[in-house]
Amino acid sequence: MILLRSHIGTALRAARIEQGRTLRDVAKSARVSLGYLSEVERGHKEASSELLNAICSALDLSLSTILLDVANVVRAHETPLVTLQVVETAA
Amino acid sequence: MILLRSHIGTALRAARIEQGRTLRDVAKSARVSLGYLSEVERGHKEASSELLNAICSALDLSLSTILLDVANVVRAHETPLVTLQVVETAA
Repeated sequence: MILLRSHIGTALRAARIEQGRTLRDVAKSARVSLGYLSEVERGHKEASSELLNAICSALDLSLSTILLDVANVVRAHETPLVTLQVVETAA
Repeated sequence: MILLRSHIGTALRAARIEQGRTLRDVAKSARVSLGYLSEVERGHKEASSELLNAICSALDLSLSTILLDVANVVRAHETPLVTLQVVETAA
């Protein structure tokens, strides 16, 4: 099952890693506990809208950037795999 | 402040209204209480990822469709207004 919180967590974690920052650093900047941020990143906890804003702000990312990322990943997961079958026919 | 839950609620409500459906109908189909759906639509309650999926499914909408809608609305809210000032200069 596609869960929004998992994809949001993955996107936030990827952004933090890309910036070479620690959980402790981002948690402090967002004024959330390290344990909370870790749970959010792992998709174990739903971030409230207010704390999602705080985390995005700590990462210097707009909420829409994260949402667009997540929407695209979710769309890719939703798209059913298409299997092409080449059928040889006699000429 | 831009709150994700408000924009998700607005998008869900707009989709329901567009389909000419009642809160009762969608709540029943999503197996959530009418009060819960109403609170989510008004942005008063954060929908859990599981219940968001159930509501999207009841509305026959993919999660990515809602997220893209919301991302675009949030982006529009984030974009600062640009004021153009025409300054007349002596030729």
